[in-house]
Amino acid sequence: MSNYQFNIKEIIDEINKINAQKVGLQFPEGLKIHAISVARQIEEETGVTVFISGDPCFGACDVADVTMKNMVDLLVHFGHTPLPLQYEVPVLFMDTQFKLDPYPAIEEALDMLKDYKTIGLVTTTQHLHLINELIVLLEKNGKKVLIKEGDGTRKAQVLGCNFSAIENLPVDVYLFVGSGNFHPLGIKLSTGKPVIIADPYRNEARNIDKFADRILRIRFARITKAREAKRFGIVVSSKKGQQRMELAVHLKKMIQKMGKEAYIIFLDHVSPDILIPYRELDAFIITACPRIAIDDAQMYKKPIITPDELLIVLDQKKWDEYKLDEIRYND
Amino acid sequence: MSNYQFNIKEIIDEINKINAQKVGLQFPEGLKIHAISVARQIEEETGVTVFISGDPCFGACDVADVTMKNMVDLLVHFGHTPLPLQYEVPVLFMDTQFKLDPYPAIEEALDMLKDYKTIGLVTTTQHLHLINELIVLLEKNGKKVLIKEGDGTRKAQVLGCNFSAIENLPVDVYLFVGSGNFHPLGIKLSTGKPVIIADPYRNEARNIDKFADRILRIRFARITKAREAKRFGIVVSSKKGQQRMELAVHLKKMIQKMGKEAYIIFLDHVSPDILIPYRELDAFIITACPRIAIDDAQMYKKPIITPDELLIVLDQKKWDEYKLDEIRYND
Repeated sequence: MSNYQFNIKEIIDEINKINAQKVGLQFPEGLKIHAISVARQIEEETGVTVFISGDPCFGACDVADVTMKNMVDLLVHFGHTPLPLQYEVPVLFMDTQFKLDPYPAIEEALDMLKDYKTIGLVTTTQHLHLINELIVLLEKNGKKVLIKEGDGTRKAQVLGCNFSAIENLPVDVYLFVGSGNFHPLGIKLSTGKPVIIADPYRNEARNIDKFADRILRIRFARITKAREAKRFGIVVSSKKGQQRMELAVHLKKMIQKMGKEAYIIFLDHVSPDILIPYRELDAFIITACPRIAIDDAQMYKKPIITPDELLIVLDQKKWDEYKLDEIRYND
Repeated sequence: MSNYQFNIKEIIDEINKINAQKVGLQFPEGLKIHAISVARQIEEETGVTVFISGDPCFGACDVADVTMKNMVDLLVHFGHTPLPLQYEVPVLFMDTQFKLDPYPAIEEALDMLKDYKTIGLVTTTQHLHLINELIVLLEKNGKKVLIKEGDGTRKAQVLGCNFSAIENLPVDVYLFVGSGNFHPLGIKLSTGKPVIIADPYRNEARNIDKFADRILRIRFARITKAREAKRFGIVVSSKKGQQRMELAVHLKKMIQKMGKEAYIIFLDHVSPDILIPYRELDAFIITACPRIAIDDAQMYKKPIITPDELLIVLDQKKWDEYKLDEIRYND
């Protein structure tokens, strides 16, 4: 049984409404194990032909509309909310709601929040449906709760590359409901304020401080090593929502002005293997998904850094202004 | 030092001729280690901005024209001859000639060819420049040499997915000049005739029989295992020159008629990892590059088979009619 809820009925209604004959399905990595059973249900109940997108997918930055153009009448993209981008086929974005009970983790978090009055509530797409009841619960416990919309994100929603929904909120602490440490790390580094995580996957609450310290130490080491680099690779993603070519060209010129070399490498899916042939390069700047340099740092032999970190490497920014890299669409 | 010759001057001439400002470079896997030095020479001598395509590339089926559309004025594609496809940016195909001396291997091969009179000469793109002198040498040794053009390939040239240049040649034996066993295997299975390999990388000659026997045993095992499959995945490539969607839809219907299930998975780069999430599927049919199922069979836990092998699985073709899968454009 899955911990996620797929709303097959809504998909079938849309297929019937637009009389689609060929339907693409795209799942993020964690949901791909459900692809076959979702495809079977849709094919059996509608008679359409389903095409499952098999490429890696980590966000709405990476919708298969380009590759599936002229191939499907409808593309169903699961697990992410839409970004303000133009898509080349009709795309139905399907939230996949996480079904596990978040309240044990929230109860534990409340204990850690007892010294704080005003709370910024933050989560990711699969828990957004809980926001209203979470606010009620927190208010019952005497808290004041603040949330806001971001640039391209919903109320209280952050992405791995977009923390705009928590910018400048006058709160004492942030409560992040969700899994993993990346999003709370981003909140911590964007705001400098305490961040408590209520994690319904692990049924626990924790604070981000220890993790943030560890990551910052790793980043400092990578930046220090990248200072010795004479030749940089600037990696640009061909994914529509991650493509920052103008930034890459700007960074290339900046590096060249410092008397160093820089080469632009344009690709779809960044991985350690794919960078191996570039033996002459000493460090890589990843202008693709901001999470790559942070989450996967240990997998790469050479330093991989974010565009913002390059500014520190080139002495154009101070270490104590360190922030996570973000991709904003409404700037 | 490289064993390959890059004709930088010809690239620079073309850049100047069309006044290109932004130039893409695309190398097959084995040549990617030269990408940075080629990029540096071109940028220094012309002032253009170079964009290196970092995605895996195994043939002219896989040209980066689609992803680099609207991004470059010229794409230089190394190491493959053009296929009869439409490209979305101007593409300069650059043969990269292999520089090592092939004659020690040819000498050894001549000894293995002593009982044969009429020879079909076959090679791959990086050795095509040698064809005329090889014919002279073979004729000096008393042989009759036959070569012909293929559908989409040059005289005496085969691809991993196209053996049309050796079809119906009235020869006693084939001499393949090049590396690896895949191409000679295809010649063997297409023609049933003896195949001698002159391998200038290893400086040796060998025949293909032992390798062909081993591969056929592996294929037989995979086909036998795939007969038990109830649910098939049909993998379709999004690469322009490998995309066989019509074939995939046809196979899906054929499988369904046999009372089994089939699901189409559409993706760019096929790898063992990328098929892991489809736990419900028992076997995969690879309609992408014909080499994947053969070369990489051992890397996959579940049977991966070619479209032609599916026909044997479904008892629509006999095992003794076994052939390698091919992708032809002029059919």
